[in-house]
Order: sequence, then C-alpha cells, then structure tokens
Amino acid sequence: MILEKIKKPNDIHKIPLAEFPQLADEIRSFLIESVSRTGGHLASNLGVVELTLALHNVLDFPDDKLIWDVGHQAYTHKILTGRKDEFETLRREGGLSGFPKRGESSCDSFDAGHSSDSISAGLGYVRARDILGEKYHVVSVIGDGALTGGMAYEALNNAAELETNFIIILNDNNMSISPNVGGMSHYLSAIRTAEAYTGMKMSVNKAVKKIPHVGTAMVDAVRRTKSSIKQLFIPGMLFENMGLTYLGPVDGHNMRQMMRLFNEAKRVKGPVVVHVLTEKGRGYEPARRNPDMFHGIGPFDLKTGRPTEQKSCPGYTDVFSEALCQEAEEEKKLAAITAAMPGGTGLKKFSQRYPDRFFDVGIAEEHAVSFAAGLALGGVVPVVAIYSSFLQRAVDQMLHDVCMQKLHVIFAVDRAGLVGADGETHQGNFDISYLGMMPGMTVMAPKNDWELREMLHFAVKAEGPVAIRYPRGNAYQGMKEHQAPICLGKSEVLRNGSQIAILAIGSMVEVCQKVCENLRNAGSDPTFVNVRFVKPMDTELLDQLAKNHDLIVTVEENVQNGGFGEHVCSYMEEHHPDCHVLPVAIPDRFVAHGGVDSLRKQLGLCPFAITERIKNYRKE
Amino acid sequence: MILEKIKKPNDIHKIPLAEFPQLADEIRSFLIESVSRTGGHLASNLGVVELTLALHNVLDFPDDKLIWDVGHQAYTHKILTGRKDEFETLRREGGLSGFPKRGESSCDSFDAGHSSDSISAGLGYVRARDILGEKYHVVSVIGDGALTGGMAYEALNNAAELETNFIIILNDNNMSISPNVGGMSHYLSAIRTAEAYTGMKMSVNKAVKKIPHVGTAMVDAVRRTKSSIKQLFIPGMLFENMGLTYLGPVDGHNMRQMMRLFNEAKRVKGPVVVHVLTEKGRGYEPARRNPDMFHGIGPFDLKTGRPTEQKSCPGYTDVFSEALCQEAEEEKKLAAITAAMPGGTGLKKFSQRYPDRFFDVGIAEEHAVSFAAGLALGGVVPVVAIYSSFLQRAVDQMLHDVCMQKLHVIFAVDRAGLVGADGETHQGNFDISYLGMMPGMTVMAPKNDWELREMLHFAVKAEGPVAIRYPRGNAYQGMKEHQAPICLGKSEVLRNGSQIAILAIGSMVEVCQKVCENLRNAGSDPTFVNVRFVKPMDTELLDQLAKNHDLIVTVEENVQNGGFGEHVCSYMEEHHPDCHVLPVAIPDRFVAHGGVDSLRKQLGLCPFAITERIKNYRKE
Repeated sequence: MILEKIKKPNDIHKIPLAEFPQLADEIRSFLIESVSRTGGHLASNLGVVELTLALHNVLDFPDDKLIWDVGHQAYTHKILTGRKDEFETLRREGGLSGFPKRGESSCDSFDAGHSSDSISAGLGYVRARDILGEKYHVVSVIGDGALTGGMAYEALNNAAELETNFIIILNDNNMSISPNVGGMSHYLSAIRTAEAYTGMKMSVNKAVKKIPHVGTAMVDAVRRTKSSIKQLFIPGMLFENMGLTYLGPVDGHNMRQMMRLFNEAKRVKGPVVVHVLTEKGRGYEPARRNPDMFHGIGPFDLKTGRPTEQKSCPGYTDVFSEALCQEAEEEKKLAAITAAMPGGTGLKKFSQRYPDRFFDVGIAEEHAVSFAAGLALGGVVPVVAIYSSFLQRAVDQMLHDVCMQKLHVIFAVDRAGLVGADGETHQGNFDISYLGMMPGMTVMAPKNDWELREMLHFAVKAEGPVAIRYPRGNAYQGMKEHQAPICLGKSEVLRNGSQIAILAIGSMVEVCQKVCENLRNAGSDPTFVNVRFVKPMDTELLDQLAKNHDLIVTVEENVQNGGFGEHVCSYMEEHHPDCHVLPVAIPDRFVAHGGVDSLRKQLGLCPFAITERIKNYRKE
Repeated sequence: MILEKIKKPNDIHKIPLAEFPQLADEIRSFLIESVSRTGGHLASNLGVVELTLALHNVLDFPDDKLIWDVGHQAYTHKILTGRKDEFETLRREGGLSGFPKRGESSCDSFDAGHSSDSISAGLGYVRARDILGEKYHVVSVIGDGALTGGMAYEALNNAAELETNFIIILNDNNMSISPNVGGMSHYLSAIRTAEAYTGMKMSVNKAVKKIPHVGTAMVDAVRRTKSSIKQLFIPGMLFENMGLTYLGPVDGHNMRQMMRLFNEAKRVKGPVVVHVLTEKGRGYEPARRNPDMFHGIGPFDLKTGRPTEQKSCPGYTDVFSEALCQEAEEEKKLAAITAAMPGGTGLKKFSQRYPDRFFDVGIAEEHAVSFAAGLALGGVVPVVAIYSSFLQRAVDQMLHDVCMQKLHVIFAVDRAGLVGADGETHQGNFDISYLGMMPGMTVMAPKNDWELREMLHFAVKAEGPVAIRYPRGNAYQGMKEHQAPICLGKSEVLRNGSQIAILAIGSMVEVCQKVCENLRNAGSDPTFVNVRFVKPMDTELLDQLAKNHDLIVTVEENVQNGGFGEHVCSYMEEHHPDCHVLPVAIPDRFVAHGGVDSLRKQLGLCPFAITERIKNYRKE
C-alpha cells in the first residue's frame, strides 16, 4: 500500500510520480469502503481524487493556502494531511468533520460549508500576503455549480484588478448537487465539447476552416459563425473578457497534465482560472450513475450501492413534496423555486409534474427570493424552498423585496433547527430570529406531518409573505388527535391546565409531550400549547394565560437571541409583568456536528433538561 | 412648454418625435431647478432623461412593466406618469418618495432602493406573464455599477434559459456612485471605446486588418491579437457567451437611435441586453463635473452648485473617516473595504493616504465580508464600512465566514437607525437584531463623536468580530464630561439613581438625557446608563441594577423584535423576575421617508413619548 506512506502533510512529495495512479486508486477504494460504513459525501469526493493529488504535488502545506468551496470534496485533502485514521469517526459527535476545519489541521485554510465564497476568501489571503510582504500560493477550488452563486462573480470581478498570483481552479463536473443550470453552465458545456477539449490549436483551425472568404465578406461570415467563433477561437473568453487569465480545459483525472498546468498557473502574474474537467462519482459505478443520490448518503451496501438503513417513515421533505403537488393541482398559479436543490428540498416531483411552473435558478438564493417577488407581482403564487441555513443568504431580499412590498411569497424553510451530521455550517438555528425581525412576515412551524400539509394549504390561501419552518428528518406521525384548523396567528391549545404553560414550537412539541408528563407526575397541572405561529404572536392567548398562570415556558429549536421566547418575554413584561417567562432555546453559540438527539441533550433541549429547568425555576 | 402637455401616463405618445429634444431640455431644467430647492438625487436622474423618454415612447403603461434598479434615477419616469406637481414635496414626510413606489402609481412596477435586484424582479414578471398567458413587455434598467452586484449575475445566468422576450437595459455611465471598479467595468470600458462605439462593422474590419496572414499562421495571429479580437470582433461577447442577445452600444442621449434599438429589442425571442451609454449629471455642469457629490445632495445654489445649507458640525462619517486614518497610521496591518461607497462611508481619505490597504470591491457586500474574512486569516485587520441597510445583504457571510471562525473583522455600520429622507429602503432599523443573533459578534454603539473614536480604537485592538453602529448625520458633541474607558462588555453609568434605570443605546443616549430630566422634574431619581455594548450584554450591571431598581427601560433605534430590549427582558426574566423591563424601540413595521426628528416622534422615540410611556407604566 502506497497510501500507508502518507502520514502527514507533504509526505506526498516523497512519492514518485509513477506511483500516483496507484495511490489514486487506493484512496478511491478507501473512500468508497469507509463512506459505505459511516455515510458522508461520496460523489463529489470521488471526483477530485486526482485533482487533490495534483494540487498537493505542486503546493507546500501549511504555507500555501488551499480553499475548498462548500468543502464537501475535501476528504482526499484530509487523507493527505494525516487524517486518514480518523475517518472512522466521520461526521460523528467529536469526530472528523465532513468539511474543512481549521481546528482539525493547519492545512485547512478556511472553514467551508456554504457555497461560492472560496474566491472571496482566497482573494483575501492574497491581498493579506501582498500587504504583509509574504510569499505563498493561494488556490481556491470552486465547482461549476458554485459558480452560479453571485458572490463568486463579485469576487472574480474584484480579483480581475489583481497584479499578483492567485489560482482559481474551476472544478467543472457539469453538476451542482443536481445537474447544473443557467447560461454559465451552457457556456462551460460548450468549452467542454470534444473540439475544445483537445486543446486550443485544433479548435482555432476548425474555426478558421469555417470562414469561407477573407476581406469584407468576412464580416458576414463572422456574424454567421458567431456561435462557433465565440466558443472556439478562445476557450474561456468569458473569463478573459473579465480580465482573468484562463488555462484549460484539462482532464481532471490526468494528473501529469494537471500538474503541468498548475505549475504554469503559478507563474502567472495575476488571477488565473484553471478549468479542470472532472467526473462526479468516478470509480464507483453506483455513484457515477447517480451522483445526486450519492452526494450525501448514509451507510450503504458496497456491492449494490443501496442504503443499509431503511427509512422508517417519510421525512418532512417528503410530506412537503407531496403536499405541494396537491396544492399545485388545485392552484394553477402556484410555482415552485429551488436554488439548485430539487432533490434535497423535495421539488423533484413537482418539477416532473409541472415543469412550466418549476424554476431551478442555480445556487442563487438571493436571486431566487427577488425572482419570487417578481413572480408574485405578476400574479403567480411562488413557493421558495430553501434550507434554513442557506436562506440566511437572502435576508435582505426577503426584507427589502418581499416584506416591504407585502408580497405573497411562500418560504418553505427546510432543515430548520438542528441538522446533525453536517454540523455548524448547516444547522438551521437562526431562522426564527431573522424571520421574526421582518415586518409583515408570517412564520409558522408544524408539530407533525398533518400540520405541515395544513400549513402549506393555509399559506397558499394567505396574503403577504409566509414562512413555514420544518426540521430535517422524519416527520412526526403522532398527536393526530389534535387537528384544530389553522387560523392566522392562533396557537393550538393541546391541554388546558394552570400555573405553568408550555409553549412549544414545531419539533419541540413532540419533545415537550414528555416534559408535560414529567410535570404532571411531579404534581403540576401544566397547560400545553402548540405555538404554530411564531409570528404574528398569539397575544390573545398570552392575555388569557396570564390570568391563571404565573410561568410561561417557551421552547424552540433556535438561538435564544431574537427568538420566539424573547418576543414573549417582551410582550409579557409590557402587558403582564407579574406572569414570568422562561425561554428555553439554543444558547448563544455555534453547534458542531453530532446526532440530533445527543445535541439536544448537550443544549438543554431534551425532555429531562427542560423539566429540570422548570423545576429549578419554580424553586427559586 | 411641451412639458405642460404631460399630465398622465402615455401622454408622451401624443408628442411628435421632433419635439422630444425640447421636452428633454424642459425636463432637465425642471429637475435641476426643483432639486436645487428640495435636495434629492440629481446626477443619476440627469443622466437618464433621454433614456426614459425613449422607453416611454416604445412602452405602454401600466401594462408594460419598467423596473428601475436602485431607483434613484426614476424622477423623469415620475414626471412622465403624472407626478410632476408633487416634486415640491420630494422626500418629505407624506410627500413624493425619491424611489419608485407602487403605492404612488400603477406605472411603478417594483419598489426599489437596494442595488442589483431589477433583473431578478423583471425575470419574475416575465415568467409570471408566460405562465398566465398574458402579453406585455418587461424592461429592467440596471446600471453598470449595479452590475457588479452578484445577484444581477445570478439573474442573468437564470435569464439565459428564457425563450420569450425580456429587455435588460444596461445604463452604462462608468460609475456607481463613485467611479466603477472591477473586471466587468474594464470590459465595458473597452466596448465604450471609440472603435466599438461607431458600430460593429467598422470594428470587425479593423480587427480583420490586424490579422496579417490566413491559414495556420492565423492561429498565432489570433493569439497575438487576442486582446483586440476579444473586444472588437463582437462587442458584448461576454453577454452572448452567457446566452443573452446583446445590442449596442448606443448613445444614451440620442433618442432616435435608442428607440430604433428598443423596438428591435422588443422583437427578440429571449433575453436581450441593450447597452446604453449615458453621462451622469448631463446638462448641469457642476453635476457633470462632480457626479459623486451630486448623487444625493441637499438644496443647492443653482448658479454655483454649492450647498445652501452649511454643515453645522462633523457627521459621524467624518469622525470615523478621520479616526480610521489615525488607527491606520499606528496599525500598519489595518486595511479598509468599501462596497462602492468610498465617499458615503468616509473611506475616501483613507484610500488616498493608504491606497495599498484600501479596497473598493464594487456593489458587492457579500464578497466584501468574505474577502475580509480571508484578509483576517492572512494576518490583516480589515475594517468593512457598509451602511446598516446594505449590510443586510451579507448576514450569511458575517455569520458563516466571519463569526463561525471567530475572525477579527471590524464592521463600521454607518447609517444605523433612522436615516430620514431616503425612506424605508434605507432605514438602518434591523442591525441590532441581525448582529445580535450572531454568536461571538461584539456590537457597540457610541453616544458621541469622542466615543466613536474610542470604540474604533478598542475594536482594532480587540479579538474576534466587532461591529460599531452609528447613525447618519451630525455626530453628537455633548456629554464630553463622561469619558470612562471602553472595556469589553461594560456599560457606562452616567448617573446613579434608584427605582428606574434607563439604558440607552448610541443615538438614544442624547435623546434620553431629556427623559432623565423629565423624570427628575417629576420627582424620580433615575439611573442613566450609556449601554455601549449591545453584545456582550453587561450582565454584571443588570445584576446590580436589580438590587435597587424595579424598572429597567431600554431605548434603542432598532426594531423591537430581536433588539437589545428583548435580550434584556429574557435575561431579567430568568435571573431577576421581579425587576421589570420596558423595551422602547421601533415598532414592528417599515418606516417611510421623513425628517428624523419627526419620525422619532411618530415612532415613540422622542423624549416626550418615552417619558410618557415610563410614567404610564409606573401607574399600572
């Protein structure tokens, strides 16, 4: 095993080039085997094995800075920097993160997770290097999917003015998680075609042959062959036009070619884009055939590629997926928007049934939201399905383009609250805070699958902006005995009691059933409320509760700062100062990866911890 | 006067083309004269008089949709849609808004204010039109400055897939508020050069002449003349590469040429970019010479162009500007970043003194923040100066790229709180909420000019992310007798009293002096605290106050939801349930344009209203 010789950063410099292909094979086998046991990101990592080896060959760590965009393709980088043996613990609590983490290794230069920021971060390193007079290389690796994100373009625009070296690797696999979309994607596809692939010279020759005459006739010829010319004369002209040097395209599985190009790139005085063509899932047939499914996957059977663990019940995403199609059947003006995640957000089914009303806008949350604003103004009912953590990208667009104009846009905020294994970059712990500050935004959270369907229906019929937040994972199937109709700003009282009232939001309703039981066992008679509407707040209920309760406990899977609990505190302080409030929420910190149940315990959001907090509060 | 004939939308269709030049002149005179009295945006509006006339000539209102990016260039549009007589009230409370407002006219299609969202909104209209089977034209007008914003590119990328008509007017004046920057700007400049300007044919002829031989030799020739070829063969190739049709460039002050091109654009089946070259400030020499100063201006003398009202004292921006240069003198690793507003944010002086450490990244707040993250990782101390309302664009980047990594990035949050005449799109009423939810973010607000300087110094020496929020307008010069040193998380007690404690943030300290006086006159003995640190909260002080106070009044120029008051409420609820809190803040709504003092009265943030609320609370 050559792989055994890689113990620490730069060990790869001792490996003869002739052995690189075997090393790539060994890494690939290790990844497939290891991820089949732990789960994790597979397709993206299999695509960049040779790319990573080639980069490590031409760079020196930790002096040189390598920045991975999104970061779900850094497994080979982790292996080459001495973390191979930790793959057993991948994405588990206290174990190896699925993303680059500066805390894990000095060879990780940037903690990634969200898309399209690697060029910005890389350019920051470059400018700092130049200001401080240091010498090192900075390489940002960005996928063609991430290149649909606007901030990548902002960074390219800004990088164009640079006069010192900065290498941008465009890792082009024609995919984001799903197939890539948009004008840029078509442009890259054109470069990717056979002619261009084989190098510039042949392309130019071909183009020249297409021009029949010289002289003034050429003017018309140019017009006619415009589309060939613009693609073929100079691949990468779009980048060149913006002021960046373009090299490539190069086969991302041919290490010698890549290393030659990377060494050339290191000599460029200015920003240089190296266009590398890779294949997602390469080397493992099930992943190659189905890179979407093998993007992030649980443990699977090596031979068949089938998941080892069977889904026990439908997830909230599945419930949403089905319910949205039903709404669309009835409401012909309903449209759905995803930012490059038709699979993850459950919109695939919708896209197949209603292709004319489905829009995948690319990894472009900002545009997605303002585009929805335009749709709403044009008379359509848009549903924007984006994960809680990624919707952070569009706070201004929600506030300025949707709420300010009171537009009827529905936000399906998936992966709200703790997400588990993806860790701190993906936890949806802030949406109640950022949605709650927006004037006119209605914010809901369902207690179970039934309620998500009802809330979606309510949202379609409602006015103004409406957000529904629901968690990752299984949809809770219980509490079906409670089916009060959804009314704007009204909570659902699950149990009438006195003295203590528990107000639980969404996923916390299930959790708080047990808290209620605990309190009853301890002799209390708690009121139990399914909040439903984080905003507008059910002040009528709060006024009522104030009459025969002296403690209101709010429970939410969101940070405490700016959360629902604080809104209740301030309302009660002003209107019922003698009724107290205990806000239970996620403390003011980022939450690393781990199992959701375990994280809840750690954060005080499990039944035991909540019960204890209430008991202790009562004692004081 | 031809202008007298324009009373309502589409009246322009009755005006003979021959009279358009005179009409343009009349509008220009009206604008200059009117804005000289009321103040407002001038340079941008003078640049698009002919463009707007040409657009109104080829469009029908309100059926067709015209979307202005940012919207500070819509004055002529307002005049042509029957709002000329309201210009007397421009930007005053209850008067005409300085931006497009659907509430003002059915001919305003989108409420604008922030940059780079017009293509997204326009594309939304287009898709809605097609889904609903309607027929109308959609035109988005975007400046070359706004085109540096990433979401414009996200929208172009998405629009490329469109197969029906959508017209994007690129209003290219080589400026954002200040001269435009970045690769895209250089690219547009190249098109703008004389050769390209005179039309495509000549350009192509010229390019052909530069190619010496035909055949294989051409390969090298192409390489050699790459830079000419790529600019000259097909202007707008960058847009064509992305899949958009490009028309132009056309002289934006030649109405006949523009109308011909717009009519051609209406026939294109798909998205079409029309490149229009305009001159900011055209027709008024002081504005033409100094478009930056005449971007947004107060009343001025028509003859000299000099402001009528003299500045009474330096603004917070001036104080910051000076203080930052002083810090940079001492701290050689300090760098400053602006998103296309070196003037507005006060960084002009810094850019002149320390050009190597100054970065104008374009209208690109997201990139600005992640770029700063990279700078910090590279050992530099970056100061990002962005208006509160625009910083909303970068919430995710602050959270994910800066706070999560605990990076020492300083945010100079200018225009925090009410800004006045620019209205709801520009009020900085949310930053305490969105900054407050970010783990690890330090948030400060100064009471006066001295304190802003001290806080900046503190921030430069601090660790982790630090934000300083300060308002638009004059820096308060009073209360110089209070100069307690700045300590992390420590408030400044201005007056020790009992029973009632007033905790005021930033601009509200000045306001609350009078509240304190009122209360003393009414027999109370209030404690008065300058909060200084919104985060981390001074819990030690709160614990102390709880001992001999039964009411804490928090006062902030920020929405209540997620604001400082709510954080205090939840802290006190948990730790001192018997000490009550009255959070005074901006209610849960958007705040339209008007004078700051008047708005404060309206919102209950003036001394009288605050005093009354306290008195009433005590009575209950």
